[in-house]
Amino acid sequence: MTDFVLTAIAPGWAHFLSPPLPFTSVLGEAAAEAEAGPLVLAGVLLSLIVVYLASKIGGELCVRLDLPPVLGELVGGVVVGVSVLNLLVFPEGNIAAAAADSRLMSFLQATAGVDPEIVGSVFASTSETVNVLSEIGVILLLFEIGLESDLNELIRVGPQAAIVAVVGVVTPFILGTGGLVYLFHLDTVPAIFAGAALTATSIGITAKVLAEIQRLSSREGQIIIGAAVLDDILGIVILAVVASLAKEGTVEISNVLILVASAAAFLIGVIVLGRLLIPYFVGLMNQLKTRGQVLILSLTLAFALAYLADVIQLEGILGAFAAGLVLAETDKRDELEEQVKPVADVLVPVFFVVVGAKTNLGVLNPAVPANREGLIIAAFLVVVAIIGKVVTGYTLFGGKEKVNKLAIGVGMIPRGEVGLVFAGVGSASGVLPESLDAAIIVMVIATTFLAPPMLRFAFNMGGPSDAEPVAETSGG
Amino acid sequence: MTDFVLTAIAPGWAHFLSPPLPFTSVLGEAAAEAEAGPLVLAGVLLSLIVVYLASKIGGELCVRLDLPPVLGELVGGVVVGVSVLNLLVFPEGNIAAAAADSRLMSFLQATAGVDPEIVGSVFASTSETVNVLSEIGVILLLFEIGLESDLNELIRVGPQAAIVAVVGVVTPFILGTGGLVYLFHLDTVPAIFAGAALTATSIGITAKVLAEIQRLSSREGQIIIGAAVLDDILGIVILAVVASLAKEGTVEISNVLILVASAAAFLIGVIVLGRLLIPYFVGLMNQLKTRGQVLILSLTLAFALAYLADVIQLEGILGAFAAGLVLAETDKRDELEEQVKPVADVLVPVFFVVVGAKTNLGVLNPAVPANREGLIIAAFLVVVAIIGKVVTGYTLFGGKEKVNKLAIGVGMIPRGEVGLVFAGVGSASGVLPESLDAAIIVMVIATTFLAPPMLRFAFNMGGPSDAEPVAETSGG
Repeated sequence: MTDFVLTAIAPGWAHFLSPPLPFTSVLGEAAAEAEAGPLVLAGVLLSLIVVYLASKIGGELCVRLDLPPVLGELVGGVVVGVSVLNLLVFPEGNIAAAAADSRLMSFLQATAGVDPEIVGSVFASTSETVNVLSEIGVILLLFEIGLESDLNELIRVGPQAAIVAVVGVVTPFILGTGGLVYLFHLDTVPAIFAGAALTATSIGITAKVLAEIQRLSSREGQIIIGAAVLDDILGIVILAVVASLAKEGTVEISNVLILVASAAAFLIGVIVLGRLLIPYFVGLMNQLKTRGQVLILSLTLAFALAYLADVIQLEGILGAFAAGLVLAETDKRDELEEQVKPVADVLVPVFFVVVGAKTNLGVLNPAVPANREGLIIAAFLVVVAIIGKVVTGYTLFGGKEKVNKLAIGVGMIPRGEVGLVFAGVGSASGVLPESLDAAIIVMVIATTFLAPPMLRFAFNMGGPSDAEPVAETSGG
Repeated sequence: MTDFVLTAIAPGWAHFLSPPLPFTSVLGEAAAEAEAGPLVLAGVLLSLIVVYLASKIGGELCVRLDLPPVLGELVGGVVVGVSVLNLLVFPEGNIAAAAADSRLMSFLQATAGVDPEIVGSVFASTSETVNVLSEIGVILLLFEIGLESDLNELIRVGPQAAIVAVVGVVTPFILGTGGLVYLFHLDTVPAIFAGAALTATSIGITAKVLAEIQRLSSREGQIIIGAAVLDDILGIVILAVVASLAKEGTVEISNVLILVASAAAFLIGVIVLGRLLIPYFVGLMNQLKTRGQVLILSLTLAFALAYLADVIQLEGILGAFAAGLVLAETDKRDELEEQVKPVADVLVPVFFVVVGAKTNLGVLNPAVPANREGLIIAAFLVVVAIIGKVVTGYTLFGGKEKVNKLAIGVGMIPRGEVGLVFAGVGSASGVLPESLDAAIIVMVIATTFLAPPMLRFAFNMGGPSDAEPVAETSGG
């Protein structure tokens, strides 16, 4: 470290070697920063260009192959990242070595003429900034998911959706965590993290497929959507708890209970207080006259709740999600959704691509014998991810109408962007071994890839049931 | 610097002191980064909350006082910045001292429990990220200004607007730079920078006042708007040249000529090539099917041109402005303007508030005798800023119709957001003495503040001329 810092500072010092100045070290530091500053902006612009090209090329290819675009954004990230092109890489340990590996930094050096001695600090600052942009991206993603959730609709779909959601969270979590600890002898914290990643459900992907085959308003469609909304809520509470455990490094029952209680209390507290106070907040919005008042006030609330959740040892995304849930119940919802969309379009792909770019799929290369266990874990996670959700449909009985149980279970399979949130937070926490990190990404890719064709197949199997709306039927 | 780094790294080292590890320094560095990472996000979220509160409170107050909101955002920044509240401060020289001064860092420490030994590095990374966000903000601002400019309209308004624009750029530049060098004995580069800041015109503020008093489509209104568009183009070329001179530190005529030629060549080259290639670009946009394709492709173009402009030693904002100009001529313009708006709403205030926050108005405190010269310079800049633009109207003669010459000149007075871009770039370049930096901000505030009432007065003075549209009359 010391070596690196001294070389990084050297050009700054050099400027001040001739005149005998009293505060050489301070001035040297400032000079090095002044030199690095514009280059950091250039590095961030280049990174964003790479992110957008990767996400658009990947997304468009997936759309043409009838796959969810988010899968393409993730795979695009894998391609530009450490696994393949080394364009977008992030420092791990030795910054100077990582900077030398980064093709983006080589391009920057070749075009913008970076002094080789400050490359390390430009690279570190660029990576840090892109990281923060990706974290703001996931905060916006969860804010948007919260904004699109409908608590009232959830209550209406009722008990059946609740059963599906709870079973679909508990089964893969227990199977996954248990299997990793007892079959593969992993440490408890990483195993719990991987188990937690298995609980996610991506409502967006399933909803899109259901809409395509015109089953969105069928009984099955309603249960799946309701369960997926509840799953988001359960999943984000689990994630907040697991991420906090990862910070501690150990798992104690008392600690887990406190965390679950505080996550639940935070979410319920925000919703209850939010329902009371939000009319005043909306009243304030209506009185403002400057540009973008609805968006900026809402984002300020989301950032403030994210900060609060972070400070009480939970995850920032829980706060952003809660802000979205609360604002979804106001009459500003449609206006806000429309305004958040372009901002999310700009920042959310940074998150997806960065998660992909950080994933080293090389650790799962089957040609290397040492990688076999990682591959087996990845296969295990994929199987548990599918079984753990497929069973959910079969826990429904006693309903007034016959439902396609297989279709309900299959509809819960895709992990999509929610699974990526788990992978991203896990990777940032530093507790996941690289191979487990890659195995989780493989699980997310596989479930997201397989779900659409499986869902079409399941509905065909169940025979040509009518796609009638069931708006007024309450759950059985 | 070395002291600071060692203490910043200390907690990282401490973790590894007991087990004898081979690469202690590397691991220590990574551990310190892993600890600082989430805190940097928390610091950035807090900074954004402060930015939004400052910009909204300032903006809303100004709207209620019938002043342009951008003035409120700037003054809001001054209030939260180094001049008053010390909430949002940026490191200059000694990072540890600046971190200790930052109320935001104190709040972060009090709420999130930051290890005192990593406060310096969290502060440095937070500031760097907020800086990059503000620079992306100004890139978006110039992209938006480019997108709203209409080259065809400019050509239509013709010679009268061109005369007003050129006189309004040359007069304040020569008066300002000459006065600072010969009256106040400033160095050439800072004097040129201040002179360049005097050339700006903010079209938005004047257009809004003209619309309010229903003179937007009057002959005077048309000339002012046309001249202001041309002023944007001339101004950004001047800024690119001046900023490049600031990097060199010296002014040589050959150098200036090369820079002017390359800035003009870049802008003309992008516009000409853009007109040829943009149909293919729009064709590509139309073939994409994923979310946000128009916005993301356009921003990728803007960032790529910003990077290119940066690499050839001009300013990134010149590239973003050129991208906006080119895209303004496509049929995507309206859709794009609508989608860029929320993104600009989120990022542009970061720029305005940061410019205000960095301005130390304390250096103009009249109670301190040493500040007198700075105050006199500020007063000088305000006077030159007003005179330099008011004369422009009186250079018009021989036109077919009688125009209100005073009103035209007064309409060019407000510097607004364009003046702030000059101040921001100048401050980032490090060549401006703190007092000159503050004097430029005072000039921007004063002209933006005075222009609306002066414009109303000038039109009243000119008698009750009809506010008729003159859409089809060409210039005389």
